[in-house]
Amino acid sequence: MNAVVPPPNDALAALSARETARRVAAGDLAAEAVCRAFVQRIADGDAALGAWAHVDAERALEAARAVDRSGPLAGVTFGVKDVIDTADMPTEYGSAAYAGVRPVWDAPIVALTRRFGGVVLGKTVTTEFAMASPGPTRNPVDPAHTPGGSSSGSCAAVAAGMVHAAFGTQTSGSLIRPASYCGVVGYKPTFGVLNRTAVKVLSDSLDTLGVVTRDVRDAAFVTAALAERPGLAVAERVAPPRVGLFRTSRWALAEPATRAALDRTVAALAAAGVEVRDVAVPEWFEGLWAAHDAVMGWETPRSLAYERDRLGDRLTAVTRRFLDTLAATTFADYTAARDVARGRRDLLDELLSGCDVLITPAAPGEAPLGLGATGDPVFNKVWTLLHGPCLSLPAGRGPAGLPVGVQIVGRIGADADLLAAAAFIEQALAAVPPVARG
Amino acid sequence: MNAVVPPPNDALAALSARETARRVAAGDLAAEAVCRAFVQRIADGDAALGAWAHVDAERALEAARAVDRSGPLAGVTFGVKDVIDTADMPTEYGSAAYAGVRPVWDAPIVALTRRFGGVVLGKTVTTEFAMASPGPTRNPVDPAHTPGGSSSGSCAAVAAGMVHAAFGTQTSGSLIRPASYCGVVGYKPTFGVLNRTAVKVLSDSLDTLGVVTRDVRDAAFVTAALAERPGLAVAERVAPPRVGLFRTSRWALAEPATRAALDRTVAALAAAGVEVRDVAVPEWFEGLWAAHDAVMGWETPRSLAYERDRLGDRLTAVTRRFLDTLAATTFADYTAARDVARGRRDLLDELLSGCDVLITPAAPGEAPLGLGATGDPVFNKVWTLLHGPCLSLPAGRGPAGLPVGVQIVGRIGADADLLAAAAFIEQALAAVPPVARG
Repeated sequence: MNAVVPPPNDALAALSARETARRVAAGDLAAEAVCRAFVQRIADGDAALGAWAHVDAERALEAARAVDRSGPLAGVTFGVKDVIDTADMPTEYGSAAYAGVRPVWDAPIVALTRRFGGVVLGKTVTTEFAMASPGPTRNPVDPAHTPGGSSSGSCAAVAAGMVHAAFGTQTSGSLIRPASYCGVVGYKPTFGVLNRTAVKVLSDSLDTLGVVTRDVRDAAFVTAALAERPGLAVAERVAPPRVGLFRTSRWALAEPATRAALDRTVAALAAAGVEVRDVAVPEWFEGLWAAHDAVMGWETPRSLAYERDRLGDRLTAVTRRFLDTLAATTFADYTAARDVARGRRDLLDELLSGCDVLITPAAPGEAPLGLGATGDPVFNKVWTLLHGPCLSLPAGRGPAGLPVGVQIVGRIGADADLLAAAAFIEQALAAVPPVARG
Repeated sequence: MNAVVPPPNDALAALSARETARRVAAGDLAAEAVCRAFVQRIADGDAALGAWAHVDAERALEAARAVDRSGPLAGVTFGVKDVIDTADMPTEYGSAAYAGVRPVWDAPIVALTRRFGGVVLGKTVTTEFAMASPGPTRNPVDPAHTPGGSSSGSCAAVAAGMVHAAFGTQTSGSLIRPASYCGVVGYKPTFGVLNRTAVKVLSDSLDTLGVVTRDVRDAAFVTAALAERPGLAVAERVAPPRVGLFRTSRWALAEPATRAALDRTVAALAAAGVEVRDVAVPEWFEGLWAAHDAVMGWETPRSLAYERDRLGDRLTAVTRRFLDTLAATTFADYTAARDVARGRRDLLDELLSGCDVLITPAAPGEAPLGLGATGDPVFNKVWTLLHGPCLSLPAGRGPAGLPVGVQIVGRIGADADLLAAAAFIEQALAAVPPVARG
């Protein structure tokens, strides 16, 4: 193991987002000092990590000096995935075809971040158009491995202590999987909770905006502020949730590292007094993967019609092939998939019957070796299709020493329950030894 | 009555979109000649009409010369509402705050139009951000009256024979109402049928892209091509539909002109052998207006967060007030409204029980006098919330000599049925005298 960046080593960068905001609001801490600590960490570490597509330290410090201390996110630092439009920084969508592009507006999520006192440090690396062609980012725990994608830079930057929180997006597995690979919390709220306007569109029916943070309470804190839903914040003490273990119909693809992470989570919950029950895989479940692929397959090549028709020779070969493969989807496939997906609320209710949340793989295993690909979203696609909230929680290390997450899944709209349960599980995991016992 | 622009007076501009495409594909007609005929009509008439925000005749003619004759829309001319991004023309969103902006891409709907052989003549006038602050466009039948909005330029340009088809968008009543005022067909397909990526977002849950044309079959023809759903095209002969007359719970707001248009439609259908049945207004219906307003009220001020926070002094007073009013919506209102809207499919099925389509007001009456406001979307909001297909069909003239439409409403996803029924009603109306008999 060969960490690119040491964990946060100064007191300011180590503070949680919520504690930072509390102190800045109280006048005990200058937002500029906080910003300076993170800017320094980026300056020290990003040459090796490659998490940032663009950093404007001077502008960030200026914004920090001007922060409205009454905002709920006062002084909290943010990274913005580079598929999200910003007016004062380039937005290149991870593509050479859009090198140097600067939109005329901030996406609403960025405008709201700033309105509420957050400080944007810069843009984080994305794969090309949040699809399969990787950027330069390395895994923060071992630079020979991928950080996952497409929210590569957001997950790596948070893991490396370069920012409190960063935005990610998910159409297949672009947020939950890299969060698992990098050892951070990735939270994809219920579809529509965070405003996704002016985020580069892949699939109108699937694209979801989420956040990456260092712990569950920060994810809840940041989302509660940005969604203007104070009820999403997680209280100091949380009740034990009812938890089901759901292996999905693709359990054969779960590697020993992922199985061990789930075992460890089950054991940690048992030690905390929660007996995890096994949830059977219904027959209809296996069909949901194809349904996801049909929805994305129909919508994505059309959402990128201009890029395909006019910029084709400036896209990577990986992206062109990816789009061509998707474009084989028929309208009949798409219609059938949408009919299935329309029942998503009932399907999730059936899976979660008697449970508050499910635990399930976040990724097949540890981050794969190499930077040429970002891993397999197999354990994410269905949950994106179903629109419910899900969260990847660090649950130990695998045999290669890389992080492995467990995914926690909730009912549509039950984000507060999901976050509270995740905080309980996080606490239970912190109380057991770091090595798998399962 | 003082027509700004005479009806299409040359043979080329008078051809339907579908006949134009057929002849261009067959090599019987040059797309350039078609384009030139429309460009001339714009040059002759737009100084008085004000329908176009930007026209690039040279570029359009060049595109026409290069048209792929195998495309389903070969040689068909299009106007693009100026809330839709284009890479080769400015996109100003109807706002002085974005004067001269030129996006880096074509919205997918524009890229697909071009891919399929359509020729884009330019950008049509929109109200500011497709809300309430009007542009310079006049009603094509009487320049002292509004054309309606927000799709002002698209409806006026089609009515004045300056283009075969134009794109409009609807969040409240921005497509159906101006189509009624201008005497053209406005078709808002089922939510999601036309790709709305890179269309300026007001409300992710409501915004719908649609088309304006001179007749129903052109609306179906163009949409079938762009949605890649050949089944949407309307056959030469259509079967008599089962039609209900639905007055809504706001019938008191329907002026004599609108009542006469509906009477005339009922009489025309009776003459064609279709007895229109009265559909009772269920008790729950009245609540849907508030539900629409709550969804838009929560989402729109947030989607325009950047404009509100950073460009406020460059927005019109009308826009600022409009946004401030919306922003009074509470999250509780929003949540309740979304819970209601989730049942939209069942609600529409209940309303349409025993019918293929409903006929209902498209607008309160004729286009109001003056250019300072664009009329009341009261008879449109609910149908936008419900996501079903609807279409405004010209159904005669009112006492001031201005056009009045009837709105035809269908079930979610049943766009082919809606279009076939609309074509039948259009034909029935053409067979009766132009003065209301009801």
